[in-house]
Amino acid sequence: MILGLALAGPASAAELRDQVRSWRTAHEAQVVGDLVDLTAIPSIAADPTGVAAAAERLQDELRRRGFETRKLSAVAGMPPVVYGALASPGAKRTVVFYAHYDGQPVTRSQWRSDPFVPVMRSGLGPDAHDVDWRAAKGRLDPEWRLFGRAASDDKSSIVAFLAAFDALKAAGRRPSVNIKVVWEGEEERGSPHLEAVLRQNQALLASDLWLIGDGPVHQSRKRAIYFGARGSVGLEATIYGPLRALHDGHYGNWVPNPAALAAQLAADLRDPQGRILVPGIVDQVRPLTPAERQAIAALPPIEPALQREFGIAAGETAEGLTLSTMRPALNIRGLRAGQVGEEAANAIPVTAELSIDFRLVPDQTPEHIRAALEAWLRSRGWTVLDAAPDAAARAAHGKLIRLAWEAGYPGYRSDMTTPAAKAVVAAASRAAGEPVAVLPMLGGSVPIYLFADVFKTPVIGLPIVNHDNNQHAANENARLQNLWDGIETYAGLLADLSW
Amino acid sequence: MILGLALAGPASAAELRDQVRSWRTAHEAQVVGDLVDLTAIPSIAADPTGVAAAAERLQDELRRRGFETRKLSAVAGMPPVVYGALASPGAKRTVVFYAHYDGQPVTRSQWRSDPFVPVMRSGLGPDAHDVDWRAAKGRLDPEWRLFGRAASDDKSSIVAFLAAFDALKAAGRRPSVNIKVVWEGEEERGSPHLEAVLRQNQALLASDLWLIGDGPVHQSRKRAIYFGARGSVGLEATIYGPLRALHDGHYGNWVPNPAALAAQLAADLRDPQGRILVPGIVDQVRPLTPAERQAIAALPPIEPALQREFGIAAGETAEGLTLSTMRPALNIRGLRAGQVGEEAANAIPVTAELSIDFRLVPDQTPEHIRAALEAWLRSRGWTVLDAAPDAAARAAHGKLIRLAWEAGYPGYRSDMTTPAAKAVVAAASRAAGEPVAVLPMLGGSVPIYLFADVFKTPVIGLPIVNHDNNQHAANENARLQNLWDGIETYAGLLADLSW
Repeated sequence: MILGLALAGPASAAELRDQVRSWRTAHEAQVVGDLVDLTAIPSIAADPTGVAAAAERLQDELRRRGFETRKLSAVAGMPPVVYGALASPGAKRTVVFYAHYDGQPVTRSQWRSDPFVPVMRSGLGPDAHDVDWRAAKGRLDPEWRLFGRAASDDKSSIVAFLAAFDALKAAGRRPSVNIKVVWEGEEERGSPHLEAVLRQNQALLASDLWLIGDGPVHQSRKRAIYFGARGSVGLEATIYGPLRALHDGHYGNWVPNPAALAAQLAADLRDPQGRILVPGIVDQVRPLTPAERQAIAALPPIEPALQREFGIAAGETAEGLTLSTMRPALNIRGLRAGQVGEEAANAIPVTAELSIDFRLVPDQTPEHIRAALEAWLRSRGWTVLDAAPDAAARAAHGKLIRLAWEAGYPGYRSDMTTPAAKAVVAAASRAAGEPVAVLPMLGGSVPIYLFADVFKTPVIGLPIVNHDNNQHAANENARLQNLWDGIETYAGLLADLSW
Repeated sequence: MILGLALAGPASAAELRDQVRSWRTAHEAQVVGDLVDLTAIPSIAADPTGVAAAAERLQDELRRRGFETRKLSAVAGMPPVVYGALASPGAKRTVVFYAHYDGQPVTRSQWRSDPFVPVMRSGLGPDAHDVDWRAAKGRLDPEWRLFGRAASDDKSSIVAFLAAFDALKAAGRRPSVNIKVVWEGEEERGSPHLEAVLRQNQALLASDLWLIGDGPVHQSRKRAIYFGARGSVGLEATIYGPLRALHDGHYGNWVPNPAALAAQLAADLRDPQGRILVPGIVDQVRPLTPAERQAIAALPPIEPALQREFGIAAGETAEGLTLSTMRPALNIRGLRAGQVGEEAANAIPVTAELSIDFRLVPDQTPEHIRAALEAWLRSRGWTVLDAAPDAAARAAHGKLIRLAWEAGYPGYRSDMTTPAAKAVVAAASRAAGEPVAVLPMLGGSVPIYLFADVFKTPVIGLPIVNHDNNQHAANENARLQNLWDGIETYAGLLADLSW
């Protein structure tokens, strides 16, 4: 029986939840199998074949479900954007569901198992044991987690979307909106071609709302909606010492040590509370609105639990996690100089490497960050290079730094008071059976600003995965209960969204 | 014809030089062959068989030359000290010649060729080509260098000593002193058993003077004598962050970053001029004597040439190399946190590692350095651990640092005004035909303090190898002219030393 477009009241919302949950409990192994198969495809930047295979598979998934589908590219050879569209008769709104099918790079030596041979485990910690989920009778333990690169970030979102669609179809529910799908293949590289694809396909991608299926839910495990995300820009800095490693007994105290210079620079960049000390870099920070402050104040307190979970005594500041991530951040993601431990030799290293990422908040831009940092470096006596120094540069300048900037993008916060915004929160809350957590801005970066910039429509985040998923690190994982919740959330936004 | 013990006047010194030089020019291939064979024996800590083979060979070399010889050990299985003694009828002084036959560890991937298959090259730089020295006609190019681990540090000293002995014998010259030899096999491990061997063999090793055949000559390539050496103590510090790597977008600005803490700590330890900022650590620094200052002032200026050689624009301070190495040093020999470059992930690392070595000057001790540093860390809010933190420590303390101290030893400066000191400088200068460079203290560490502490006799350094020998790094090498000069220096101190 195909139902009409009646919007779900409380009773109807409960019925929808029950239908979707019944379908899911009967299809858990199938859904997990889909996530396993998709995660096994090595769709990371270093593996173009894997990226292409994932795009092919996703296009097939959409086609089988009746979507019109295409691969969109701005330049030859780029990982394609998988596009899909399905009209819903009578629907007055069109919603684009965004996700990405590429994953972060992997450092295989740090993984407990092959990142592309997904393994189910009983939990997160070192005591968790492998689970033969295919042999399990009946329901799967919702605390089990599937380990594999991109299992969580961001393939869970894609699998949950498809499962929700299937559940609705099985229940005879028609989507309440016209659906478009944009699944990107190079988000973890900083989305270098996304803007071109969007601009070249503006008519094709026209909509009333973008829903961004990326990022984790609240650390309390409450389902969540977010209205923005910090931007980011990465930077690899190389600081130069002597041409060859020198005995640090014979030359220590006279030959400048690039490790010491790198440490000093890192210490000068931020204070112990994480406040960035480079002048001008925070000039463009937009204050939080009353609605944003109110939403943050309404979040369940999570810091004590996170401190236990992470094994830390306290946060860098007393303002709490969410407020602290409303500020720009300068993260030292890597430091390398000389050798440590068993390999340590008493030598002055030839270079030191400092890897940094900035997290940007509205209205900061990567260009502004770059200009401010480089001006500050020069004012402090650094000679800023874009290649290794030659003999003349070495002879003339004492502090040589080579900067390699990655592509970056600004942060974004959407207006939380629009009709679309209120409708999304309401639909997600009805799907959850309780008010969802409302986050003004994710600490992590998703290129939301771009959709808003190109299409001038509301852009809202729809995260489903667990916060403790090790995304961007080794042993990334997706917790099954989050996948189950995510299916319900997607079903609610497909079948019960209207404004 | 055996000459008597007449001390060399200027004419006699010139005759001795000529005799030794003539012998050497006729025996260059033989001397280089001896250095090649000794370098090919992998006498490093990781290869006990190699260490034993080197000790065996050296004992044979001494026995063949008429020395009484023994292997001395303080504990079973340690690399033995090779001892040798040869009395010279009529000599009133006894001199112990110290050197070590072990080499630094190797990181094979960083070597241009196998560190234990010695290769002769035309020079030092990347353009230097391999040379078939065995096929060379006549004299070898004195700028050629033999590449191999320990070729320079410290097997050149041993080979030069033996060659000098042979040259004197060929010339019918009798040593002017009774000779003792102490060749150690674990200097590069910090000489963990040397003190015990010395104390257990005090009568056997009684002498009027120790000559320490280790370290490089002056960077001007002038032959040199040194009167001390900085001590050293190494330290591996681990700073703890969250239990697992965390997405630095979602948690950056709230979860403390151990890379940032390590950088801040490194920056707090020393100022940009290399002065150590830990209170009390320099309290025990003994001022230079007028004789020491005078000796330093008399050294040929070397900084401009070294700046070119090392590719640096300036030293950390304007005081120059030698004066700067009269101070204690805190060298950052390694930094490790997270990932950099292609592997960089946007994550807060779980630990940061900081590898440090201190260079100690009289009258500092490793115990004092350790106490001062740990007290300072505690005063700055660090919790100092000797093992990884448990959950209780993580919950209670925000700044957790684990320290692993290596064995170390103090620095030493000998009195430059004793009769023995003056006699050594005079004999070395006569052998060189010009005044040698006189260094109050090497920047690098040699456990000289120990000989002085146990025997209360003067201890003086007799270096021969080139400063640009990559000792303690990959592609260690010995320059032939330094080997030739070293033979003459050793011959002078064997046959022309008296006080």
